[in-house]
Amino acid sequence: MSPWGTHTAQSRALALDPWISQVTTGVTARLEEFFAEKHGHARELSPRAPELISAVEDLTMRGGKRLRPLAIYAGFRAANPHVSEFDWQAILTLGAAIELLQSYLLIQDDWMDDDDQRRGGPSTHVAMAQKFGDRRLGASLAILAGDVAMGFAVELLHATQFPPRRTYEALRSFNDMHMEVVFGQQLDLLAHEDVSLTQNLKTGSYTVRGPITLGALLADASQAQLTALMKFAQPLGVAFQLRDDLLSMFGDPAKTGKPAGHDLREGKHTALVAEARRLLSASDRACLDAVLGDRSASADAVQAAMSMLEYSGARARVEAKLASRLSEAQSALAEARCLDAQGVEMLMELIDRTALRNS
Amino acid sequence: MSPWGTHTAQSRALALDPWISQVTTGVTARLEEFFAEKHGHARELSPRAPELISAVEDLTMRGGKRLRPLAIYAGFRAANPHVSEFDWQAILTLGAAIELLQSYLLIQDDWMDDDDQRRGGPSTHVAMAQKFGDRRLGASLAILAGDVAMGFAVELLHATQFPPRRTYEALRSFNDMHMEVVFGQQLDLLAHEDVSLTQNLKTGSYTVRGPITLGALLADASQAQLTALMKFAQPLGVAFQLRDDLLSMFGDPAKTGKPAGHDLREGKHTALVAEARRLLSASDRACLDAVLGDRSASADAVQAAMSMLEYSGARARVEAKLASRLSEAQSALAEARCLDAQGVEMLMELIDRTALRNS
Repeated sequence: MSPWGTHTAQSRALALDPWISQVTTGVTARLEEFFAEKHGHARELSPRAPELISAVEDLTMRGGKRLRPLAIYAGFRAANPHVSEFDWQAILTLGAAIELLQSYLLIQDDWMDDDDQRRGGPSTHVAMAQKFGDRRLGASLAILAGDVAMGFAVELLHATQFPPRRTYEALRSFNDMHMEVVFGQQLDLLAHEDVSLTQNLKTGSYTVRGPITLGALLADASQAQLTALMKFAQPLGVAFQLRDDLLSMFGDPAKTGKPAGHDLREGKHTALVAEARRLLSASDRACLDAVLGDRSASADAVQAAMSMLEYSGARARVEAKLASRLSEAQSALAEARCLDAQGVEMLMELIDRTALRNS
Repeated sequence: MSPWGTHTAQSRALALDPWISQVTTGVTARLEEFFAEKHGHARELSPRAPELISAVEDLTMRGGKRLRPLAIYAGFRAANPHVSEFDWQAILTLGAAIELLQSYLLIQDDWMDDDDQRRGGPSTHVAMAQKFGDRRLGASLAILAGDVAMGFAVELLHATQFPPRRTYEALRSFNDMHMEVVFGQQLDLLAHEDVSLTQNLKTGSYTVRGPITLGALLADASQAQLTALMKFAQPLGVAFQLRDDLLSMFGDPAKTGKPAGHDLREGKHTALVAEARRLLSASDRACLDAVLGDRSASADAVQAAMSMLEYSGARARVEAKLASRLSEAQSALAEARCLDAQGVEMLMELIDRTALRNS
């Protein structure tokens, strides 16, 4: 049974699908326009600039579910059901900004984690290293491509016309989101013991909380609406990350694009691993630790570690936490009298796309 | 004789010194306040965040000549002689923003160039690597520290109250400046043959042109004033970079903080090297190329390469170019009827600090 009540994910998805595809298509088209314009301008500045822009474009256009623009749109609609043509353009510009912020974060993250693949292609530092036959130069150029993506994100943020009295708040919200991700990434690199703090900062901020807040500010939401949306977005952000942990460990590799147990070999400090380390006996914990971060671990060793995540009860606990966060998010919506009903439906659809997704 | 006419640099410096020390002290104090506030806020977000902020703070507060805030102030004063308390605060906030932009650029630049030292201390990636006993982690944390510095720069930019009708233009000017530096750094990494293009993008943009434009926009300068200031700033930016090349090759190591011939061992594609390669015979050029980028080159080999820069005529040509760019900048000021006389004096003082400096 679906954890959020009587509807099934599928029936709602069918009913509400048009807004999903409109936002997705609209943001993708806005990004295409933006890159075309930037290529023209950059060529005048420097003959090599288009290469750096192409690196950002390749990653940005290669996919992604455009989840964050969907969150912006749903946040807007929950606060204000009337989307004028002017509002729609602002939503697409802001959506493009946040997709570029994500490209910047992914480029840096992949380099820091030494990940070769992203969105079905080489990660940016790998693509650059291949192009120039030099790993170090590849890493430097990837960081510069990330800088370009961040610069583009800020440019599009500035081009987004917020209601004048909300502009400063919106810019601050964007900056806070950026800072939270960076501090979250720092905790991740330092293998900080409080995994939920790391994940809340690293992912929760810019995946759910930030975009919903920005969409609501664009709609000139009331303080009561902003508070209600935060009560929803906070647990949903956690649920999204827990789902991410579960999927990259136990998901169908054909759908997630990651080999089973990938996170173990990478040594990622996921909620699953943290729970297992807490629940396992000392000897089992030592076995798990031996696999963690060992990129050459055998398939058998990874399989054994994965079964520990199951029999320790870690998987069940993470699933229970996920269900509990989801029910918090749903209660927040159910209690929020100040939000528009159709917008609330969209936020519920967002739950499917984030915390109940299969890939 | 001083290249800009009848006054000597020293007499002017004495007369105008108060504004220099007021801006320098003011920006330093604003940065101190800002870091104190950020430490408090960051501690609430994450127990480790203050470490990343300290890394940015160490580099930012360790020095620098605050040249860019001086350029902001002079740009403002050239357009508008009346600096209200409100304007003064805005100048300091914007000055702090651009100093943080510089910290971000220096952190990345030092890592990309593998430079161990900056402003009389370890560069950020080296400091981080020492702290954690891990070079790779050190590099990742340095990139994150750079991200924090960039985020702070954007935050302070947003806190700067430009005249409403100039706000968008100012934000765009800041973004353009950021993009130009990144594209310039890309050309530098790729050893692009057009050294003057590289330098104009990499240094000219955010050292002189950008800050002067931003200061003028803060003063709500007229279009004629902005045009006049650009005619001054463009050649001065080039002159600054040529002076930088000359100083790091032939300057007093005790003053510049860099060993003689440092740029040769680093393999930097400076204007001096480009000129020498063009002027030298094939066999001499091969000798120069052998030293370029060879970090273990002997002192004798470096000395021989340095003497090639002299006898090829490269040094003389770069000095002539510098003098010619300076005279362009001075003529632009002399012709600009629309600028305030005292502001023009300050811009002339800026020439001393950028293109005629000894360290």
